[in-house]
Order: sequence, then structure tokens, then C-alpha cells
Amino acid sequence: MSQQTVSPDATIEADPEVPVIHIYREFAATPQQLFRAHTDPDIFVRWIGPEGMPVHIDHWDARTGGSWRFVGGPEDEYGFHGCFHEVRTDRIVQTFTWEGQPDGVALETLTFEDLGNGRTRLHTTSLCASFAERDGWLQSGMEVGVNDGYAKLDKLVADGAV
Amino acid sequence: MSQQTVSPDATIEADPEVPVIHIYREFAATPQQLFRAHTDPDIFVRWIGPEGMPVHIDHWDARTGGSWRFVGGPEDEYGFHGCFHEVRTDRIVQTFTWEGQPDGVALETLTFEDLGNGRTRLHTTSLCASFAERDGWLQSGMEVGVNDGYAKLDKLVADGAV
Repeated sequence: MSQQTVSPDATIEADPEVPVIHIYREFAATPQQLFRAHTDPDIFVRWIGPEGMPVHIDHWDARTGGSWRFVGGPEDEYGFHGCFHEVRTDRIVQTFTWEGQPDGVALETLTFEDLGNGRTRLHTTSLCASFAERDGWLQSGMEVGVNDGYAKLDKLVADGAV
Repeated sequence: MSQQTVSPDATIEADPEVPVIHIYREFAATPQQLFRAHTDPDIFVRWIGPEGMPVHIDHWDARTGGSWRFVGGPEDEYGFHGCFHEVRTDRIVQTFTWEGQPDGVALETLTFEDLGNGRTRLHTTSLCASFAERDGWLQSGMEVGVNDGYAKLDKLVADGAV
């Protein structure tokens, strides 16, 4: 079985009209499994972020109106936080701040599209306040964390951990 | 004393580059008073929205990571909700959904700029997912609610209620 077939890199695209980053990725998982992977903190910390980066939850309340914060890195030096605007089985809307830029806020929308046969397409949009902020993210090397993370999630699904 | 001088209409502008609505308004109030008017639910319900529209709080937790919901209208027919991404004395960042369009979400940032002499300039940005959504708001008659609400807030401040 070709790993390339099962786990291609995510498609990361700059929207042509609005300061949005689109990320598309297919998984050999059901929408329910992807929802769990994004809302269960014990599963989330096992896949989010670059390969080898330890992640710890600071707080996590994955319901509409809840909020979240996690830290990553050997010395917890990278902090991220936001609030959950909406948590439902086919869609999560949340705010996102990387604490290295504490006044920067993105509005993220994740949708889980059921492709049938146990496959799901994840589409994430990250709406930024400006094109400069959006393009800064695209030039930051973010694709490493995205692709490493999704590859870890593929393995968790294959191992029956999700 | 000219009412026009004290309480001009808010300036409501479409951003030329991103799907944002800017609202600017000066108040004869301190930043602390404007912060209280936006975070204390008992004060908030006395000024938000069009003249004569009753407003009730459903829930309200004005802290970073909290959430809110209020309903308006004679039969509570208009619902609005969101989460507070950040609540600090000079800036509030929150999400905003009008439940008549339940999948629409805006990211709102309110900043309170101290002009001295007991005056403050409020700047609100509402970042929408698309230009169509943003322009729909601008054509909705929103200026009535904005200006009525701020005029009510002027009176509350003048009456010493804030």
C-alpha cells in the first residue's frame, strides 16, 4: 500500500479574494472520527503539530461557547489559545491566537465532508484580519506542522486509537 | 448644548481591501465606562439595539474564553450569540452570529481609545467571511440599531448609570 496514496500532503491555498487560508485533506476516517480527533484533548495532543513536538493541554472545553489553550515545545514555549464559537459534528468554528503574536486572531472553520466508504474530506478556513497577516502565516513554514500532524493522525486512526 | 455636537452618528465604513465593517464613534465617557457598558450585562441590555426594542440576556460571561447570548424583540424573536476570545480593558475580541443566519460568523474587535478629558473613541471592526456577507450587513439597515444604541448609551452615561 502506497503511503503517498493514503496520505498525500494537505492542499494549502491562499484565497484569491479574502485573507483566508484554505487547507484541504482527505482521511481514511469517518467524520465522527475526525470530529473526535479535534475535540477529545487526549487524542488531540497525540497528533497536533510538527513531528516530535510535545504538546500539553492547558485547558480544553470543546463545546459551543467553551475555550481552549495548549502549549507545545520541549519547554512549553509555544502557546496557542482561542474560544469555540460552535462545536457540532460536521463543523467546528473557533478563534485562534498564537501567543507569539498576542494581538493576532484568526477565525477558523473546520468542516468534515463525508465521502463515504469511511473517508472524509477536512476543509479548514482560517480568516485573518489582513492579507499581510495571512501571507505571514503562509510563509512561516506552517505546512510542516500541518502535514506532520495529519500524518500522525493517519497513524492514530490506522491503529484504532481514534 | 447641541445634541449633534455631543452625539453625532457613528461613522460606518466598508474596508476597501478586506471584508470588514469599521464603526467609529466618540463618547463623552472614559474608556473604563465604555468597557463597563460592553461587559456588564445589566448595563448592556439598557442600550444595545434599536430604540424601543426590549433585550434580554440568555447567558453572559464577559471574560477571555467566556461566551454570551442575548435575545431581542417583543417576543424574543431575534437571537445573537458568540464567544469572547479576549476581554481586556482596552480591547474586546469576540465572535458574533445573528441566529437568523446561523452559519454566518463575524469576528469583532472593539478598541477603546482614550482621547483625554473624559472622551473615548470606540472603533469596532467586524470581519466577515466574504464581501457578499459584509455588504449584506451594510445594506440591512444596521445603522439604525447602531445609532439608536449609542444614543441610549450617551444618555446612560449622562445619567451616571455607567
